[in-house]
Amino acid sequence: MSESRQAQANIGVVGLAVMGSNLARNLAGREGNTVAVYNRSPERTRLLTTEHPEANFVASENIADFVASLTKPRTAIIMVQAGRGTDAVISQLSELFEPGDIIVDGGNADFTDTIRREKEQSAKSINFVGAGISGGEEGALNGPSIMPGGSVEAYKTLGPILESIAAVVDGVPCVTHIGTDGAGHFVKMIHNGIEYADMQLIAEAYDLLRKVGGHSPEAIADIFTDWNDGELNSYLIEITAEILRQVDAKTGQPFIDVVLDEAGSKGTGVWTVQNSLDLGVPVGGIAEAVFARAVSSHPEQRGPVRASITARPEIAVVGHTFQEDVRQALYASKIVAYAQGFDAIIAGATKYNWNIDKGAIATIWRGGCIIRAQFLNRIVTAYDNDPSISSLLVDPYFAEAVAAGEAAWRRVVSTAALSGIPVPGFGASLSYFDSLASERLPAALVQGQRDFFGAHTYHRVDMPGTFHTLWSGDRTEIVTEASTH
Amino acid sequence: MSESRQAQANIGVVGLAVMGSNLARNLAGREGNTVAVYNRSPERTRLLTTEHPEANFVASENIADFVASLTKPRTAIIMVQAGRGTDAVISQLSELFEPGDIIVDGGNADFTDTIRREKEQSAKSINFVGAGISGGEEGALNGPSIMPGGSVEAYKTLGPILESIAAVVDGVPCVTHIGTDGAGHFVKMIHNGIEYADMQLIAEAYDLLRKVGGHSPEAIADIFTDWNDGELNSYLIEITAEILRQVDAKTGQPFIDVVLDEAGSKGTGVWTVQNSLDLGVPVGGIAEAVFARAVSSHPEQRGPVRASITARPEIAVVGHTFQEDVRQALYASKIVAYAQGFDAIIAGATKYNWNIDKGAIATIWRGGCIIRAQFLNRIVTAYDNDPSISSLLVDPYFAEAVAAGEAAWRRVVSTAALSGIPVPGFGASLSYFDSLASERLPAALVQGQRDFFGAHTYHRVDMPGTFHTLWSGDRTEIVTEASTH
Repeated sequence: MSESRQAQANIGVVGLAVMGSNLARNLAGREGNTVAVYNRSPERTRLLTTEHPEANFVASENIADFVASLTKPRTAIIMVQAGRGTDAVISQLSELFEPGDIIVDGGNADFTDTIRREKEQSAKSINFVGAGISGGEEGALNGPSIMPGGSVEAYKTLGPILESIAAVVDGVPCVTHIGTDGAGHFVKMIHNGIEYADMQLIAEAYDLLRKVGGHSPEAIADIFTDWNDGELNSYLIEITAEILRQVDAKTGQPFIDVVLDEAGSKGTGVWTVQNSLDLGVPVGGIAEAVFARAVSSHPEQRGPVRASITARPEIAVVGHTFQEDVRQALYASKIVAYAQGFDAIIAGATKYNWNIDKGAIATIWRGGCIIRAQFLNRIVTAYDNDPSISSLLVDPYFAEAVAAGEAAWRRVVSTAALSGIPVPGFGASLSYFDSLASERLPAALVQGQRDFFGAHTYHRVDMPGTFHTLWSGDRTEIVTEASTH
Repeated sequence: MSESRQAQANIGVVGLAVMGSNLARNLAGREGNTVAVYNRSPERTRLLTTEHPEANFVASENIADFVASLTKPRTAIIMVQAGRGTDAVISQLSELFEPGDIIVDGGNADFTDTIRREKEQSAKSINFVGAGISGGEEGALNGPSIMPGGSVEAYKTLGPILESIAAVVDGVPCVTHIGTDGAGHFVKMIHNGIEYADMQLIAEAYDLLRKVGGHSPEAIADIFTDWNDGELNSYLIEITAEILRQVDAKTGQPFIDVVLDEAGSKGTGVWTVQNSLDLGVPVGGIAEAVFARAVSSHPEQRGPVRASITARPEIAVVGHTFQEDVRQALYASKIVAYAQGFDAIIAGATKYNWNIDKGAIATIWRGGCIIRAQFLNRIVTAYDNDPSISSLLVDPYFAEAVAAGEAAWRRVVSTAALSGIPVPGFGASLSYFDSLASERLPAALVQGQRDFFGAHTYHRVDMPGTFHTLWSGDRTEIVTEASTH
């Protein structure tokens, strides 16, 4: 370490690709911050400092100088590719850092990696904070939504810095201490899962307005702009209108019609569903969004299946309320997706011992991030009114919102089924609602089958205990303590 | 090791709970087999040999005696609880076994554990075979469907033994060498995932016949018995009829009405979905079945949601074809579930380098296992005709079967949506089919959104290359090599 170097930066950023550079610029633009910057290849560092001479940067071309330029407790945010790259930088910093210093991983890490890393650094008394950062490049520059985990102690130093750069809604910065170790990255993962669902539902609404409603992309852009003035008001609805209004310069066609309809993904949606499965939380609305992208990306299946089909169903005739029906179906389905996402957060908090404030999460998602929406205020209110509600669907506002849109939701799913329009998100969400709403579920039959072929036993509605019917014997019922198979 | 003990058993079983005991009895009942048996607590061993003095058992009360009683190459099937118990027994056997001996894990292991264990034993030249065994207690005793992985060499010794105890359909034993290392347990996992879907679809059919069709459980039992004579012929349809015909002796009510409607699960369904997500294979039909069980098992959500609802929709009026509509919807949805399951097998085989014969898998599922069905012959034929088809839905028989039921399928999903009956399986399967069948998917909008907020880029329908629109700039399109965020 260059001992001669003067410690003068209160925060540092390692990794100066677009996200890291923008975050460093955001930090440098706030009063009181001096920002140490370092990148493995120094060209990027020079580019950043040259392009932004006004910014309060302290640039280093090696990690020792970078560390020496930080005031104590040293605080560095890592913005490199998740995985091995992150581990390498953590290890470099950790060698030079001292007890009480703070390493922040601002990438999209798997929260189980974050739990492991926090444990490793904590053993050396170094604070490790996994912080989910949402909002893309623009958010990083102008104000993201930030979801930091790690220790309460680390947040005392880190919190004010993050609060200075986060998006602000109604005077409240979009950052809060989510919980210990991996809590921040876990909640960021769920945020992304909800984002998948939100995008898929909007896509289904567009598809229905186009194919069943017969509207042009431009007309649908107007419909979305209109919707953006109501309860659906959100960033994703807003940009959808802009995308649908875009005209392709090369062909003069609507932009949406020249884009290849194969959707990519980067893993956090898959993680959300996999972890929810481990937690026993049904997240069909999110899972169907992940699957919808997967189906779209299998042209080797889509082509042959289409070729093997001789006729497609006729588009069902719909009434003049169809457009409003779609809006209500979208809103009801969206409520389900958020309810499922918060269920996963609650289950994760229980499993990993995080003390999570659900209302605070909804609060910091109101700005900066991709799923920012007016609607999140309703979630804040719901958890303010009763933090212990077992589902967002139980909250009076949401229960009424779903009830108000329910008939329309049913008509839309019915119309889509008859017309051959895929609505995996709308459909799964409606079935989820109907499952919760049903007095009796055919799960009883599933239990009967499991008992028949595997002696998995069952419970009765009218008395306690565990039972098994001697299906291959005289079919009498016996009381059993536990499953024998 | 007791060197004095005479090696006389050609096969051994470790772990004599119900599955292990039944498998040992099955083995002992086949000509030419002498079966070494061992259980950690000797009481179980004594019970087995005392209750079945006729069986050709060689009982041991310690593992050394057990190993000494086996002829070379020693072959032992472990039937203990998956996880640590299995590892402990493998380690004990491995210490005493010699190069060329064979350890078989007949439990429901995670296939990644099986891959690890095979590698460990292979380093000591011991053959390790993970074998999925389906059919429950009854199958273990009278003839299961067996899915062994491991080396070709091990199968030379093991194959004839397993063939002697497997179920037999049309003269063909329900066992085949699936592929190397974890292939057997992987395929068993997918088998169970398909089983979840099959059961859920039957449960939805029952629910519709009951709540929309207005039939009694007894009448529905007759309908299922009738269906069992047609293309739906299968073990699960058969036992469903028996369960629905069962009358509860305590109350005189139909059995199905006294069973608590909260379905349990044991993990393989969850694994199937998690692994399919890793493989990028959409398995909505299976996932919705897993989620349906999860929803049913959250009474703390079901109760409050029901309490918050003031009115349920009226049951839609249906025509006289409704019963037949449900049958056709069930068959079409079932085809989708199997198509998805085989997609996952194909993707797994590619990822893990298994040379899997899809037709052979359908062949060995025709008997012994829970999803045994006449229908599997159609899958055998499909892969016989063209092993390279990209989806079962492309096969002429299945394409025609779906086309024949398609209108009914649509009516059923529509009716369910309007009537408030949850059909997550029917609905997700229909949306999957419609996604594959659609000329254009709204995935194009999802790509547009991803490009807008994250510069994730997109492809065009009319030219090669990767593109990005400068959404926050002048909105012109640029060619880009890769995503910048």
